[in-house]
Amino acid sequence: MTGTTLDDYTDRYAQRARGMNASEIRALFAVASRPEVVSLAGGSPYVSALPLDAVGDMLGELVARHGASTLQYCIGQGDLALREVICEVMSLEGIDASVGVSPDDVVVSVGAQQALDLVARVFLDPGDVVLAEGPTYVGALGVFQAAQADVVHVPMDDEGLIPEALQEALREVSDSGRRAKFLYTVPTYHNPGGVTLPGPRREWILEICRRAGLLVLEDNPYGLLGFDADPLPALRSMVRDGVIYLGTFSKTFSSGVRMGWVLAPHAVREKLVIASEAQILCPSMLSQSAVTTYFQTMPWQEQLKTFRTLYAERRDAALAALHDFMPAGTAWTHPAGGFYVWVTLPEGLDSKAMLPRAIHNRVAYVPGTGFYGDGGGRQHLRLSYCFPPPERIRDGVRRLATVIGEELELRTAFGASGPFEAAEQSVPVIDGPRSAADTPPQGLA
Amino acid sequence: MTGTTLDDYTDRYAQRARGMNASEIRALFAVASRPEVVSLAGGSPYVSALPLDAVGDMLGELVARHGASTLQYCIGQGDLALREVICEVMSLEGIDASVGVSPDDVVVSVGAQQALDLVARVFLDPGDVVLAEGPTYVGALGVFQAAQADVVHVPMDDEGLIPEALQEALREVSDSGRRAKFLYTVPTYHNPGGVTLPGPRREWILEICRRAGLLVLEDNPYGLLGFDADPLPALRSMVRDGVIYLGTFSKTFSSGVRMGWVLAPHAVREKLVIASEAQILCPSMLSQSAVTTYFQTMPWQEQLKTFRTLYAERRDAALAALHDFMPAGTAWTHPAGGFYVWVTLPEGLDSKAMLPRAIHNRVAYVPGTGFYGDGGGRQHLRLSYCFPPPERIRDGVRRLATVIGEELELRTAFGASGPFEAAEQSVPVIDGPRSAADTPPQGLA
Repeated sequence: MTGTTLDDYTDRYAQRARGMNASEIRALFAVASRPEVVSLAGGSPYVSALPLDAVGDMLGELVARHGASTLQYCIGQGDLALREVICEVMSLEGIDASVGVSPDDVVVSVGAQQALDLVARVFLDPGDVVLAEGPTYVGALGVFQAAQADVVHVPMDDEGLIPEALQEALREVSDSGRRAKFLYTVPTYHNPGGVTLPGPRREWILEICRRAGLLVLEDNPYGLLGFDADPLPALRSMVRDGVIYLGTFSKTFSSGVRMGWVLAPHAVREKLVIASEAQILCPSMLSQSAVTTYFQTMPWQEQLKTFRTLYAERRDAALAALHDFMPAGTAWTHPAGGFYVWVTLPEGLDSKAMLPRAIHNRVAYVPGTGFYGDGGGRQHLRLSYCFPPPERIRDGVRRLATVIGEELELRTAFGASGPFEAAEQSVPVIDGPRSAADTPPQGLA
Repeated sequence: MTGTTLDDYTDRYAQRARGMNASEIRALFAVASRPEVVSLAGGSPYVSALPLDAVGDMLGELVARHGASTLQYCIGQGDLALREVICEVMSLEGIDASVGVSPDDVVVSVGAQQALDLVARVFLDPGDVVLAEGPTYVGALGVFQAAQADVVHVPMDDEGLIPEALQEALREVSDSGRRAKFLYTVPTYHNPGGVTLPGPRREWILEICRRAGLLVLEDNPYGLLGFDADPLPALRSMVRDGVIYLGTFSKTFSSGVRMGWVLAPHAVREKLVIASEAQILCPSMLSQSAVTTYFQTMPWQEQLKTFRTLYAERRDAALAALHDFMPAGTAWTHPAGGFYVWVTLPEGLDSKAMLPRAIHNRVAYVPGTGFYGDGGGRQHLRLSYCFPPPERIRDGVRRLATVIGEELELRTAFGASGPFEAAEQSVPVIDGPRSAADTPPQGLA
């Protein structure tokens, strides 16, 4: 049977799949994974800081003693014991029974990514509007694009989402005859912004959303990874309703177990479970048992302190190197927690066009365009300090500063056109709406 | 903040979420999980037959030695070592390099369920037609409903999908001005049908699909669990193109690791990876490493023989009990592998209306309506023999035969109306298209 040819698939794809094409950025990141390149691109947690022998023993015992359940299906909502652990973890940020939370409102998911996708499935029709910070989490853009929704970005400053800008965005959406389904926000130690919404601004934003009848989707992967102070109250801890909350164990324990969750009002929670069953039947009982047992039997709060100290040292290394090496005209945020610094390049520079030259100079980052759904972000880039040791971070930032310096010299010598246009041809730039494929292949969570 | 009320969510849901409501069937299955009830409903593999101590040791060592990678993110397509294991497993059913297969064409997924969902995402727009056996896998119906596709069922006989009926269905779809996107089929040890497509019929069906330009989506969870003979050649082993293939480790190793895969032509594979990254970022590296190491270092083919022997004994117990106890007018299939027997009730009986009485009599099954997208299947039910030991299976079938016998007596005494209508009120029957929620909460894979 000669069969159909590859081309035959083209006219069979769903609308949403038309834009799903692998980009040149992916090929670049394949090069960036070479050992001589300092990658400041990925968002991989430093899991080697875990007590691996003890975690191994724990897992071995778990399967030997309870394999009949650990290696079996479970209910679609996720195991109750894990949902109880999740409630204990959330209580550290004020999300507890005092605001009406119980394990019955939690759905376990494959990382917070699946939780985000489930929320999109339950709420988003093609053409719906989602408000999100600009820049925003690249994985969220992938979800909203797959749902064929339109993302409207709301600007941030050094204190996160700007309330007046949110009001303005709501007015514009309303004036255009459309309705925003929700506000997607990362209020604490923002990815990629590296900024945090202070308490009073949290209240203001919640009040704006309440008045507008706008649902809030709060994504909080880094809340327990603050360097200087106690955790801030989560948005969900400040209200009983109107907020759907996403959490993950990727940064507090392990990204390899792929365990996250969504906390939602009961009526929504029911639909999320049904959507999740259609998508994956149920979450992995092996991963669920591993997380439950780790949080029930091992000193996880001590481990969290270890992670915080480790990431604070790396944040310090990144900020010191930026201060020491970056040419004038470059600016950056000062994260108080989390994994990322957001860098603004000198006027006229383009982070996407510059990336091949940076990788040639043995340093990788994610261009700012990856974090916008509307083609914005060319003058920005994201640096991650979570994975490489401090001296590698310093080397990487020094190399990046050299590349930026050379770009500035070229710009001075040749003006705005010339070599820049030529350079861009090697990395075709997507001018239209951002493609989901414009995503490095791993570790961006 | 008093906030929005629960009712406020109603007008925010996406179209596809409107039908996502928990059904009374779910509540019934909660009752059915009591220990005194013999459940012939679930599709849970008997994982206790695994060497749990050895699997535990394996996992403990894996994390202690390789935790830095095992507990970390990986690439969205899935780890290469696991994709090589997958190719080795598929080669047992003739899917190998001779028909153009390589690990690069494989995408690792959260069970075959996510693979199915990814294929739906890449191919299905609302209103698209999918052809599927009638009855078909309940989880596939959930996926197609979430994709807002229309399922057109093609009848089966004791040798599976009927080729002439497929031709007829294709004509009808075409005459209605629509185009079927693909044929979803479980050719080997069908769930829930318990029947298998013989070799010549496989060729005929592939030829019909080739001529019609119809893509085939082959789902093969049970192919290596045949009781009597060597594995049949998979559809994918008979052609180089035109078939997308779904596999899983749920039945050959563990359902709790949630590991499956999809094998697809290169252009399709690229889109599946991008869709999967938007859904889950990447599959669990812990689960992937567990499966890889199990298949690389432990006697998995011997274990497969153990599973086959165990399930064959249970199949024998189910068939013997059906023969010994069922009243005249009841019919059933004779599975040569897999987990399920499909039972046809005497004329006039309704398996959905009968379920509460069966559970009251301490036996549970899945009503046939769960396996049709069009409300069909009332005269049928699915029995699973995979999980309970043989003597429990015999008890369960005896109890079920008693319930069927009583239904028949009532029917003789009162005629077609009367007590049957009254009984139905306790389990409201969905007359319209089947809801995704009309699904027992676990173990139906």
